[in-house]
Amino acid sequence: MVAFQNDDVVHTTNHTHDCPEDFCKTGISELDLKLGGGIPTGNTVLMVGSSGSGKTTLSMQFLANGAKMGERGVFFTITEPLFKLTKNMENFSFYDKKMIEQGKVNIIDLRIISERLGLDAEKYSVEDASALLDVLKDIADELQVKRLVIDSITALCYRLKTNEMIRDFIFKLGSSLAAMGCTTILTSEVPPSGDGGIQYSKYGIEEFIADGIMYLSDVDRKGDLIRTLQLIKMRGTSHSRSKVALAISSSEGIEITPLLKSKG
Amino acid sequence: MVAFQNDDVVHTTNHTHDCPEDFCKTGISELDLKLGGGIPTGNTVLMVGSSGSGKTTLSMQFLANGAKMGERGVFFTITEPLFKLTKNMENFSFYDKKMIEQGKVNIIDLRIISERLGLDAEKYSVEDASALLDVLKDIADELQVKRLVIDSITALCYRLKTNEMIRDFIFKLGSSLAAMGCTTILTSEVPPSGDGGIQYSKYGIEEFIADGIMYLSDVDRKGDLIRTLQLIKMRGTSHSRSKVALAISSSEGIEITPLLKSKG
Amino acid sequence: MVAFQNDDVVHTTNHTHDCPEDFCKTGISELDLKLGGGIPTGNTVLMVGSSGSGKTTLSMQFLANGAKMGERGVFFTITEPLFKLTKNMENFSFYDKKMIEQGKVNIIDLRIISERLGLDAEKYSVEDASALLDVLKDIADELQVKRLVIDSITALCYRLKTNEMIRDFIFKLGSSLAAMGCTTILTSEVPPSGDGGIQYSKYGIEEFIADGIMYLSDVDRKGDLIRTLQLIKMRGTSHSRSKVALAISSSEGIEITPLLKSKG
Amino acid sequence: MVAFQNDDVVHTTNHTHDCPEDFCKTGISELDLKLGGGIPTGNTVLMVGSSGSGKTTLSMQFLANGAKMGERGVFFTITEPLFKLTKNMENFSFYDKKMIEQGKVNIIDLRIISERLGLDAEKYSVEDASALLDVLKDIADELQVKRLVIDSITALCYRLKTNEMIRDFIFKLGSSLAAMGCTTILTSEVPPSGDGGIQYSKYGIEEFIADGIMYLSDVDRKGDLIRTLQLIKMRGTSHSRSKVALAISSSEGIEITPLLKSKG
Amino acid sequence: MVAFQNDDVVHTTNHTHDCPEDFCKTGISELDLKLGGGIPTGNTVLMVGSSGSGKTTLSMQFLANGAKMGERGVFFTITEPLFKLTKNMENFSFYDKKMIEQGKVNIIDLRIISERLGLDAEKYSVEDASALLDVLKDIADELQVKRLVIDSITALCYRLKTNEMIRDFIFKLGSSLAAMGCTTILTSEVPPSGDGGIQYSKYGIEEFIADGIMYLSDVDRKGDLIRTLQLIKMRGTSHSRSKVALAISSSEGIEITPLLKSKG
Amino acid sequence: MVAFQNDDVVHTTNHTHDCPEDFCKTGISELDLKLGGGIPTGNTVLMVGSSGSGKTTLSMQFLANGAKMGERGVFFTITEPLFKLTKNMENFSFYDKKMIEQGKVNIIDLRIISERLGLDAEKYSVEDASALLDVLKDIADELQVKRLVIDSITALCYRLKTNEMIRDFIFKLGSSLAAMGCTTILTSEVPPSGDGGIQYSKYGIEEFIADGIMYLSDVDRKGDLIRTLQLIKMRGTSHSRSKVALAISSSEGIEITPLLKSKG
Repeated sequence: MVAFQNDDVVHTTNHTHDCPEDFCKTGISELDLKLGGGIPTGNTVLMVGSSGSGKTTLSMQFLANGAKMGERGVFFTITEPLFKLTKNMENFSFYDKKMIEQGKVNIIDLRIISERLGLDAEKYSVEDASALLDVLKDIADELQVKRLVIDSITALCYRLKTNEMIRDFIFKLGSSLAAMGCTTILTSEVPPSGDGGIQYSKYGIEEFIADGIMYLSDVDRKGDLIRTLQLIKMRGTSHSRSKVALAISSSEGIEITPLLKSKG
Repeated sequence: MVAFQNDDVVHTTNHTHDCPEDFCKTGISELDLKLGGGIPTGNTVLMVGSSGSGKTTLSMQFLANGAKMGERGVFFTITEPLFKLTKNMENFSFYDKKMIEQGKVNIIDLRIISERLGLDAEKYSVEDASALLDVLKDIADELQVKRLVIDSITALCYRLKTNEMIRDFIFKLGSSLAAMGCTTILTSEVPPSGDGGIQYSKYGIEEFIADGIMYLSDVDRKGDLIRTLQLIKMRGTSHSRSKVALAISSSEGIEITPLLKSKG
Repeated sequence: MVAFQNDDVVHTTNHTHDCPEDFCKTGISELDLKLGGGIPTGNTVLMVGSSGSGKTTLSMQFLANGAKMGERGVFFTITEPLFKLTKNMENFSFYDKKMIEQGKVNIIDLRIISERLGLDAEKYSVEDASALLDVLKDIADELQVKRLVIDSITALCYRLKTNEMIRDFIFKLGSSLAAMGCTTILTSEVPPSGDGGIQYSKYGIEEFIADGIMYLSDVDRKGDLIRTLQLIKMRGTSHSRSKVALAISSSEGIEITPLLKSKG
Repeated sequence: MVAFQNDDVVHTTNHTHDCPEDFCKTGISELDLKLGGGIPTGNTVLMVGSSGSGKTTLSMQFLANGAKMGERGVFFTITEPLFKLTKNMENFSFYDKKMIEQGKVNIIDLRIISERLGLDAEKYSVEDASALLDVLKDIADELQVKRLVIDSITALCYRLKTNEMIRDFIFKLGSSLAAMGCTTILTSEVPPSGDGGIQYSKYGIEEFIADGIMYLSDVDRKGDLIRTLQLIKMRGTSHSRSKVALAISSSEGIEITPLLKSKG
Repeated sequence: MVAFQNDDVVHTTNHTHDCPEDFCKTGISELDLKLGGGIPTGNTVLMVGSSGSGKTTLSMQFLANGAKMGERGVFFTITEPLFKLTKNMENFSFYDKKMIEQGKVNIIDLRIISERLGLDAEKYSVEDASALLDVLKDIADELQVKRLVIDSITALCYRLKTNEMIRDFIFKLGSSLAAMGCTTILTSEVPPSGDGGIQYSKYGIEEFIADGIMYLSDVDRKGDLIRTLQLIKMRGTSHSRSKVALAISSSEGIEITPLLKSKG
Repeated sequence: MVAFQNDDVVHTTNHTHDCPEDFCKTGISELDLKLGGGIPTGNTVLMVGSSGSGKTTLSMQFLANGAKMGERGVFFTITEPLFKLTKNMENFSFYDKKMIEQGKVNIIDLRIISERLGLDAEKYSVEDASALLDVLKDIADELQVKRLVIDSITALCYRLKTNEMIRDFIFKLGSSLAAMGCTTILTSEVPPSGDGGIQYSKYGIEEFIADGIMYLSDVDRKGDLIRTLQLIKMRGTSHSRSKVALAISSSEGIEITPLLKSKG
């Protein structure tokens, strides 16, 4: 037996990082309550939803609330131009321009990064993807961020050429994120659920690297679409899995309330 | 770390355009009400629906009403010949030939443009698609339009050869539209929803470049098909998401009314 | 800006054909009523339905009734041999052999045409398809027809080699038909709807070139299949969209009646 | 205009065969009643059903009853060995060995034919398929059959190499059958309908060459599977389209009875 | 006409094997009752079901009961190791080690056979598949078996490289089995039926070579999964098609009982 | 007959391993009860479920409980880093660090193994897969484990290049596991069931090598997701197949309780 030595196994539990035991609070009180305190520090959460389900707003609020608690964060966007993103966020009371100016919340357009890296703006090779991962890591290290968002992993993967490359990239991203130790939100864009069943990701692999899954979807109440949130999974917590309503307002941002039962 | 300098992040919020803060009214009063004032200026809206759902009429009315408010608009068509399009529109009271003659509403057949560019009429190469994007931008600039419609993004993409080209084109179109600053409607042709679930676009990528999604569909009331409209998403607004009835008449064009509940 | 000159836009509305403003009556009185007068002259209508839904009979009756109103028509068939087609039609009272003999209704087997053109009987190249389109146009011009039927566009497309060729062909056919100015019915063969959702065409592109969609389907009334017709779309008309029953009898041909509601 | 001469059109209706006007009775009295007399002579009927729906028995009974009325028939089988087929048929009272011995019903294994033609037993080339069609025609001519069955067109097509070959073969078969003038049944094997919608054929093209469609399916009555028959289409007849029960017994073979409504 | 001589047709019915007229009893009394006596001798039965539906147990019980009636049988396994198979069977009272020792029931691992033939253990070429068929036939002949089981045809086909090879193999297997004259069970592994409709086989071709289809599935009674059996088809019998419950116990093996109706 | 000798058949039952007759208890008392004692020793169980269904926790608890009963176990992970896995497990009372230190439960990251083997970290060749199987076997032998978990077979197969390689690998894995004699759990990651039917595995082949299937899924109780467990199949046991609730708490780990019926 060449590949295996007996002490490998014992080693493995000593391999535990120096992980803070506490939680990374989202700052949305009902959500932290539901999570049993917050997201376990260092977890990677897949935030799943279709267009308009609230993924971007919830992610940004997670960073803004972190900043208020003294934790730096970074938001990597891949589809939305920065000026549009910030303009939209300025509508929300949780968002404060000073966080940006003081470097507490950092918003970075991955397309600008990849341009600077000399990458093909629309299509990455294996090496490009790898280089991009390195830069992500460098940025997170340099900024000493505790919270990291990629919005969205789906659009990021669209820039890879083949399904095989996408699989490899996702597994490598998983390893990188685990090593970084940040609490991470990856947004996952899926089609509206309708009658065609549920899915957590475009490629069915993204959930492999996730310690938690937040599922945002719409409930149709006789023609009225209600946004909802459901915790499918959150390793390291005892969490409720009931579906709750998610409201978005400019004054409060995201709010979580009980979902009224349909009479039908 | 080569690709990243610390002031990149701070830069980004200064990168905000000189965006007008107000709304771009559709001029359909109940729709503007539902939108909380109108479409945020500069937003790109995906207007989703199957054949016969009212996409073309609603888009044209958006431009005609804009013209009455002093905003120039351009309508790019890709499948319908101009003479047919205008003949059909002349049936509607909102449509006034003078708008066309005075250059307030400009209707342009992309096939004529692409012919003049020397493009293959039915099939574009990467360069063709890129050249076409440049012309779109030039036209919008020269005409100083505030409102822009592409009817439909689906048919436009059919002229691209591969799925990879389509993905690239859509992302590039998104960047171009964001840079142009017009309030834009992209119509998205989808199959009738039936029992097969909902989709927002043919390729599942079109929604990535959209700030808003308007979903037009039919509700079957015991054999009677009722047209409906639903706002799935509209960044920068607090909008209702309830489904409303959409009626088309020659006197009023598109009208929005409450959707009576089915008794069944 | 090379590709665009300012007067292009103004030109475009002058580009309007000399279109008759009135309607092209189907001669089936309840259907014309439903259509608000008839099919707008020059429109291309996609008549969608599965095998046995009544597409061929309704199309032929449209031509026969046109002949009685003094409008010449042509019926292009691609799957059914002429002797079978005419034998079946002779069962209907609307059909009169004299129309054929006097050239008021012309029935042409596209396979005979393509044989004469030296085309591969079962498989067309790009050039074949193009040549066929030219001949269609020549025939329509020479016969001075006002009404044109292709039965079916689905079978016609089956003779093209690739999906790309089919897309191109459909877009070119749309341009040709628009230029011809005939009122046209394209029959579209789809699978029975069952529980698997609705579709308007085999390739999902045929509806792009249609100004109107008539949807023929079966309603199951406890094991009894009722034929129905529904107007999904008809540009230039204010039409009802309710589903109506479609009966076929030898004495009357197609008749339209209200659809009794199911008690279940 | 090279390809078209004016008298082509007039020619076409003179092209009518010398078709007998009457019906080809199935000899199953309720079915003939439902058909309004029988299958119009010369029609090609697609008999659709999953395994166990009764296609083979009904086809054979059609031939046996024809023999009793003095019409010769031929049954082409492609999957079932002759000895098994005849052994199973001997269980039915409608089947009489003498019909076979006297050449009134002829059962031919297409695999034996294709072996004699030197064809690859499992896979046909274009030429093979063409040669087989010629032999089918020769046999039908030589035996002077009025009724012809191919059981099944689905298995026959499985022996063709590509979807393109299959499409060509089906269209050519349609032309051959139309020219032969026999009343023909093509059995079409489809998956059980279940909840996955209805289909009439494996390739969705077989129905293009059919003048009639008989749909055999199972109705589930609380765990009891009831065989049913439904006439979807029969050109040249005024037929009922209600679903009826189809019973198979050794004494009567196929019998048609009303389908009791489910109480649920 | 080269390929056809007139006496071919008459020949065919003389081609009948010397088939025993009686039935091959399964030895499960309610099942034999349902079958109207048993499986017609020489029939090939496709036993369809998902994992855990009871296919292997029912097949083995068929052989064991045959042995008790003096008929030799052979069980070809392709996925399960022999020691596991026999260990599991020893839990059942119908299974008696002596049957194996006395050669009344023979269990053969096709992987051992194919190894001995020098075949690639996991992937067969056309020649491999053909050689394997020959060996199957030789074994059946040498052992003079009357009953034959292949568990499963699905796993066997997985070892073929292309869909085309699979189609050819299945048709050849059908011919071989018909020539052998054994009463045969082919198990067919399908996904659990769920809401996604019914299927009888992985490739949709396996049923072409089957004289009978037994469908094993689960009925969900408020979270309790009940195994059921339904006879879809059995040529040469008058059989009930109602769904019955199938129970598996170590004392009785498979037992068939009426299926209690759901109250819901 | 070259490939077969008469004594092959008799041999086969002598081929029975020296298998312990008793059960391998999961240590979750209600689950062992449901299983009729436990998992039959040496069985391979496919534990099917979507993200968040409890597969990893249940598998680890199976090993921890085994350790308490004196049986060594090994847990092969392929997606989750060791430090994260152990950190999460430390939340559960069933998990005791000493088990790891004393080598009673061994946790091994297959990625570290494959790295040491010099394999491409993300993509295996045929030889890589084969080498990995050998190492798995060596480790199990050396550690003298009685219980083995692979979490997940789905992620493991993702690292193989083609569907053909995956099929071969799964069949070879089945043979290896059967030969090893351990009681094995393979976790199988499937999409959430939703309305799209049930599946047991990504490739539909994994169940071929399983003696048992445990199906973990969610039941929606008006927006509250309840985790459930259902035994689909367990060879060698008389087990209940009713669906039961599965609760996860840090104090008890997995607990099995009756599933309250929905009132709706």
